[in-house]
Amino acid sequence: MSIALETTLAYFRAWTGGDFEAALGHIAPDVVCDGPAGTLTGIDAFRGFMGPFAGSLVSSRLLAAYGDDHTALIMYDAATTLVEQAPGAELHTVTDGMITAIKIIFDRQPFVEARRTKP
Amino acid sequence: MSIALETTLAYFRAWTGGDFEAALGHIAPDVVCDGPAGTLTGIDAFRGFMGPFAGSLVSSRLLAAYGDDHTALIMYDAATTLVEQAPGAELHTVTDGMITAIKIIFDRQPFVEARRTKP
Repeated sequence: MSIALETTLAYFRAWTGGDFEAALGHIAPDVVCDGPAGTLTGIDAFRGFMGPFAGSLVSSRLLAAYGDDHTALIMYDAATTLVEQAPGAELHTVTDGMITAIKIIFDRQPFVEARRTKP
Repeated sequence: MSIALETTLAYFRAWTGGDFEAALGHIAPDVVCDGPAGTLTGIDAFRGFMGPFAGSLVSSRLLAAYGDDHTALIMYDAATTLVEQAPGAELHTVTDGMITAIKIIFDRQPFVEARRTKP
């Protein structure tokens, strides 16, 4: 398996398995995360963004996972307490076994709706 | 290159190159497309969903593309007339050189916002 994908899947299995702090062990301290709301820099900002999502996870399923030496791309289905269908796709850059850059795509719309109707 | 990915990239290059009808030539008539708003079945429903997006495309950039015999996964940045940053990820199932299933992930939120503010 691709070295990058090994790291990505270790990260994915940790946070979807309920151990977000273990997942963060695969994230570089100066990670750059490009998501729907903009770019976050550093693991603390990343924790603030991804932690609540991970903490609300009900179930997940990896749909596809590919990678090569320094890049991995995955897509997954996820259900959270707030939103039942919250799939995501993540492109990771991996350097020396650490995820240094993440581009994440998901639909914010059902989260906005849920926050409106479930205050 | 993976056979599935060849088909996926031919599709991607056609619609991002401005020829959506040529792109549809890579889509199976009974395609099933699972997107943020639900599941669409058949190429006419797919045309109705993807056509307006393709028609509003200003620029695009393929960020990553992987595949194997029957599956391809891509992520891209896109700018449209309505939304400047509209990246997407697509997982394709490819059978006999035709895309038979698509799971597409993108953020609907900026489109909702844009329609609200640019009537």
